[in-house]
Amino acid sequence: MSATTKTIAIDIAENARRVRDEMRAPFTKSQKIYVEGEQPGVRVPMREIHCSPTRTEAGLEPNPSVTVYDTSGPYQDPDVEIDLLAGLPALRAGWIEARADTEQLDGPSSEFGQHRAADPATADLRFGHIRPPRKASDGANVTQMHYAKRGIVTPEMEFVAIRENARLAELRAEYEAAGYLRRQHAGQGFGARLPAEVTPEFVRDEIAAGRAIIPNNINHPESEPMIIGRNFRVKINANIGNSAVTSSISEEVEKMVWATRWGADTVMDLSTGKHIHETREWIVRNSPVPIGTVPIYQALEKVDGKAEDLTWELFRDTLIEQAEQGVDYFTIHAGVRLAYVPMTADRLTGIVSRGGSIMAKWCLAHHQESFLYTHFEDICEIMKAYDVAFSLGDGLRPGCLSDANDAAQFAELETLGELTKIAWEHDCQVMIEGPGHVPMQLIKENMDKELRDCFEAPFYTLGPLVTDIAPGYDHITSGIGAAQIGWYGTAMLCYVTPKEHLGLPDKNDVRDGLVTYKIAAHAADLAKGHPGAQVRDNALSKARFEFRWEDQFNLGLDPEKAKEFHDETLPKDSAKVAHFCSMCGPHFCSMKITQDVRDYAAKQGIEAIPVAVETGMEEKAREFREQGGEVYRPA
Amino acid sequence: MSATTKTIAIDIAENARRVRDEMRAPFTKSQKIYVEGEQPGVRVPMREIHCSPTRTEAGLEPNPSVTVYDTSGPYQDPDVEIDLLAGLPALRAGWIEARADTEQLDGPSSEFGQHRAADPATADLRFGHIRPPRKASDGANVTQMHYAKRGIVTPEMEFVAIRENARLAELRAEYEAAGYLRRQHAGQGFGARLPAEVTPEFVRDEIAAGRAIIPNNINHPESEPMIIGRNFRVKINANIGNSAVTSSISEEVEKMVWATRWGADTVMDLSTGKHIHETREWIVRNSPVPIGTVPIYQALEKVDGKAEDLTWELFRDTLIEQAEQGVDYFTIHAGVRLAYVPMTADRLTGIVSRGGSIMAKWCLAHHQESFLYTHFEDICEIMKAYDVAFSLGDGLRPGCLSDANDAAQFAELETLGELTKIAWEHDCQVMIEGPGHVPMQLIKENMDKELRDCFEAPFYTLGPLVTDIAPGYDHITSGIGAAQIGWYGTAMLCYVTPKEHLGLPDKNDVRDGLVTYKIAAHAADLAKGHPGAQVRDNALSKARFEFRWEDQFNLGLDPEKAKEFHDETLPKDSAKVAHFCSMCGPHFCSMKITQDVRDYAAKQGIEAIPVAVETGMEEKAREFREQGGEVYRPA
Repeated sequence: MSATTKTIAIDIAENARRVRDEMRAPFTKSQKIYVEGEQPGVRVPMREIHCSPTRTEAGLEPNPSVTVYDTSGPYQDPDVEIDLLAGLPALRAGWIEARADTEQLDGPSSEFGQHRAADPATADLRFGHIRPPRKASDGANVTQMHYAKRGIVTPEMEFVAIRENARLAELRAEYEAAGYLRRQHAGQGFGARLPAEVTPEFVRDEIAAGRAIIPNNINHPESEPMIIGRNFRVKINANIGNSAVTSSISEEVEKMVWATRWGADTVMDLSTGKHIHETREWIVRNSPVPIGTVPIYQALEKVDGKAEDLTWELFRDTLIEQAEQGVDYFTIHAGVRLAYVPMTADRLTGIVSRGGSIMAKWCLAHHQESFLYTHFEDICEIMKAYDVAFSLGDGLRPGCLSDANDAAQFAELETLGELTKIAWEHDCQVMIEGPGHVPMQLIKENMDKELRDCFEAPFYTLGPLVTDIAPGYDHITSGIGAAQIGWYGTAMLCYVTPKEHLGLPDKNDVRDGLVTYKIAAHAADLAKGHPGAQVRDNALSKARFEFRWEDQFNLGLDPEKAKEFHDETLPKDSAKVAHFCSMCGPHFCSMKITQDVRDYAAKQGIEAIPVAVETGMEEKAREFREQGGEVYRPA
Repeated sequence: MSATTKTIAIDIAENARRVRDEMRAPFTKSQKIYVEGEQPGVRVPMREIHCSPTRTEAGLEPNPSVTVYDTSGPYQDPDVEIDLLAGLPALRAGWIEARADTEQLDGPSSEFGQHRAADPATADLRFGHIRPPRKASDGANVTQMHYAKRGIVTPEMEFVAIRENARLAELRAEYEAAGYLRRQHAGQGFGARLPAEVTPEFVRDEIAAGRAIIPNNINHPESEPMIIGRNFRVKINANIGNSAVTSSISEEVEKMVWATRWGADTVMDLSTGKHIHETREWIVRNSPVPIGTVPIYQALEKVDGKAEDLTWELFRDTLIEQAEQGVDYFTIHAGVRLAYVPMTADRLTGIVSRGGSIMAKWCLAHHQESFLYTHFEDICEIMKAYDVAFSLGDGLRPGCLSDANDAAQFAELETLGELTKIAWEHDCQVMIEGPGHVPMQLIKENMDKELRDCFEAPFYTLGPLVTDIAPGYDHITSGIGAAQIGWYGTAMLCYVTPKEHLGLPDKNDVRDGLVTYKIAAHAADLAKGHPGAQVRDNALSKARFEFRWEDQFNLGLDPEKAKEFHDETLPKDSAKVAHFCSMCGPHFCSMKITQDVRDYAAKQGIEAIPVAVETGMEEKAREFREQGGEVYRPA
């Protein structure tokens, strides 16, 4: 053992404890709950946010808890023991075994996997509890699409159906009574078909039709099933793993757990450097969400960065290596065809996708069609043996507004459609990656073309950024585009952090990126008219109007930041229960006005609804006013 | 002089020096320039951002500077002496005098103004160089709309025409040669009519038609004319002045200057507390941008917060007081009619506009129509005597998604249309305020209804916020909505800071809010197809692609933050000129690929364009890679 690897090993162990402790703290007033399904072992995690009662003249009126979709896995469940050195419980192992269509191998079947397993130089970096990989039995196809097409409702499908509903049917009466369902506006879905309630059969049919995917490799049984498709909630992805420094294994695990805490539905591990293989194992074993990768990155490492030295055989070995570790979806840039490469010649920013550049370089060097394209059916064979989903990469995506929606980009998109059909013949699950940098008026064309040319396979976009002029704020330039393309039909949004184009995101950047993308995804759900999407908005707005500050924080996407901002102005704890704001004064308060309005309306025969009235408000209001407080600042 | 006011006076003087010094530093590689007009004294400020050359195989190819719209006034001009205690030069004084339709009064004509001028208690707080106010001569109407309707092109109109163009015609050839005009995409304007070049006559005609306004009170001759209308660049407003603490006069002046530095086209002073009058004088005298206020706030202070004690006479005196100080536009909530108030009774969050609440309370207390509505023509008489523009307030705007686009909101909007017509009969300039909290699918209805019901008077919206669930991130929830409504036709966007709903924005929040709104406004300009809007994007993207890091920072909306983020990962100065990124390796670099692609295309007869090639790249790339650098992180 070298001194360096020993240090790394210690670092991993120490960090594992710290990360575990940090990540275990639940959000204030939030509680992990589980909803049982009908199939054995289907136990769907959700988060319940508790609310305090409304104080009325008649007394206290309880406000129901709000149940929200939860991506954080078991980390915030005090009943689950977490040990990052051991990995998460294998939630789906029983389901996979029960299907009896897979076999456990003796060890990795990839050459590279075998080599790394036996390499003493990385012994200290290796995750300590590597399971032998599982693979489809001879001739079997273990994809969720394959089951769906045969009419089978898997436990994974039931799981996601329950998960998507977030107990809306069960809680409807309570929500209604509290005003949480008041005036949820009709959506504009642009052809999306959102059911009032997601059933397991609906999930199955969407997967069979190729309109949705559940990325869950049989070698990642720790993952909680989630679905990506435009007739479901819009999902978000976080990219991690950008550092080539070996000591960062624990940092990458930390970022992954951190990302799921802030709402990442999937995580892409884009690690580079010497220990990609080992880093990935640590991440997958501890991840409650599907993990995606871009296998060509690792393949390129294996040929020392010389794109022209890449071969199908080496790439194939890399796919198997990663599939057997449990990667849930692969970005495959098979749409970068030789003929499209010259179409980028007059672009302002050429080819900005790393995978796209690699394949373009290979095509030019060999002057032949890319092996990803010519071996596409061979790739399908691997994908279906582990149920790895395709994320067909947009290697020719625009890197600036000027290059948006050009011939190269759209030619590739058409090819991705052609490849989707081939993948579907193999019952492989497919999603399609999209841009990039696109001005607002050109966004919808991307979505419409994707739906048409790729037969409604789920779209998975990076942003898009709607302007190029704000480095340092590209979570915002892209969040604007993401909200729109999510509304138009994109199924998953790949986040962009404030550091995009400038440097490596740290934990704060990851949080900023994720909250921004949760906003975009939720705004899209609301605009599409997702059933129940407005419950949380209404609950929070009610809390805001009634000056239930703590509830307002807790119902928000980032309770910690909301509280911190509030406390900068009003540091006293008492302020958080006091019923006042700058609109109030000793003689003036919007709450009071509302009461007056309701009384007046009642007199005129318009039905009034219960209203909160607070005692001691005048004194508090004066106190607040004297501090110079202003909370609602009208234009 | 009390000890307190003495302290405040010292504080003002000290801060004035510090603020002046901080605010005078120009952005790196930026230079203030002026474009002369034909009319005397028309000298339009702009900012020129210098770019370094592209290094090609053939040598250095210069990149032209980019000229951008500049809101920062004389503060960044080293040739102008700045003294906050003396105020800015009276740029427009000569134009106003030359029209010979105004007279200089002996002193304030409002009772309150007279009282404050003579009050020894505030002597130390008073701005030291108060000019006697100016007013229209008997029977005269001094609004820009009045001149426009008579066919006159004022110097103000010529000024804004030159300003809007940002030298595009003059620089077109240079821009074209450098690729800055490459593929600016056709816009989708939803009925906007953006001319290829803005002429003074076009400005005049838009103002005469009521589709645009130039808010510039004759008592604010320090202001640089700017135009608000959907056939011009989308503008942004910053709210300041939220503190009631008297010592904050200098802080508010600082925030105003700071806001203009970050792109505020107008600033609203929403100050409350004991020294509103004095604070406003300081702000107006030092502001290069139009100042807006909500006079009812101060009126309410004058009756100790008792809305029911408000009278027309008191409000009238407040209007005159503020008009004579130089406020450029007034928010007037004249659309809150008695009959609409009960329509808010069943809302989730009632009336959230402070002005709306005040007027609703008054209407209910007196059970009669609001004096703003009944005295609307009297208000017009005041507005046209000073050229104060109307910003017709949306007192019934929704405070949450649930209340969006409801009967109360839209009834008020229809009334604002009715009032617009009346104001126009007086040749008063008008814009219309809009929401608020609106889910994406309901945004366009707001815009369409405003255009229809208010006859294309400029729309001025707060956000809208597209979800309620992200306190702490409402610059983003609202930036998403602002970009969209700007695209649809809103002329000015009122910023929202991250502290919205939570507390007082500090300088960082103001900057975050403004940069977010510059992004939204620029994205809207691009989507509408504003001529030349893409120049800055293309110049920045070209710099990015060529690894001209400093140019990339300097061309961005916030060069300081971009540089700071970059330096966190790559602190060495050398990194900022080195041509590499993570896509590069010793054998692999997107720049190199692009060269290959272009060579290949050239061989095939496709015309290639010049490309940057850098020496020493391989070594730099290796170095960067070993540091774990990753700059472009593809999905």
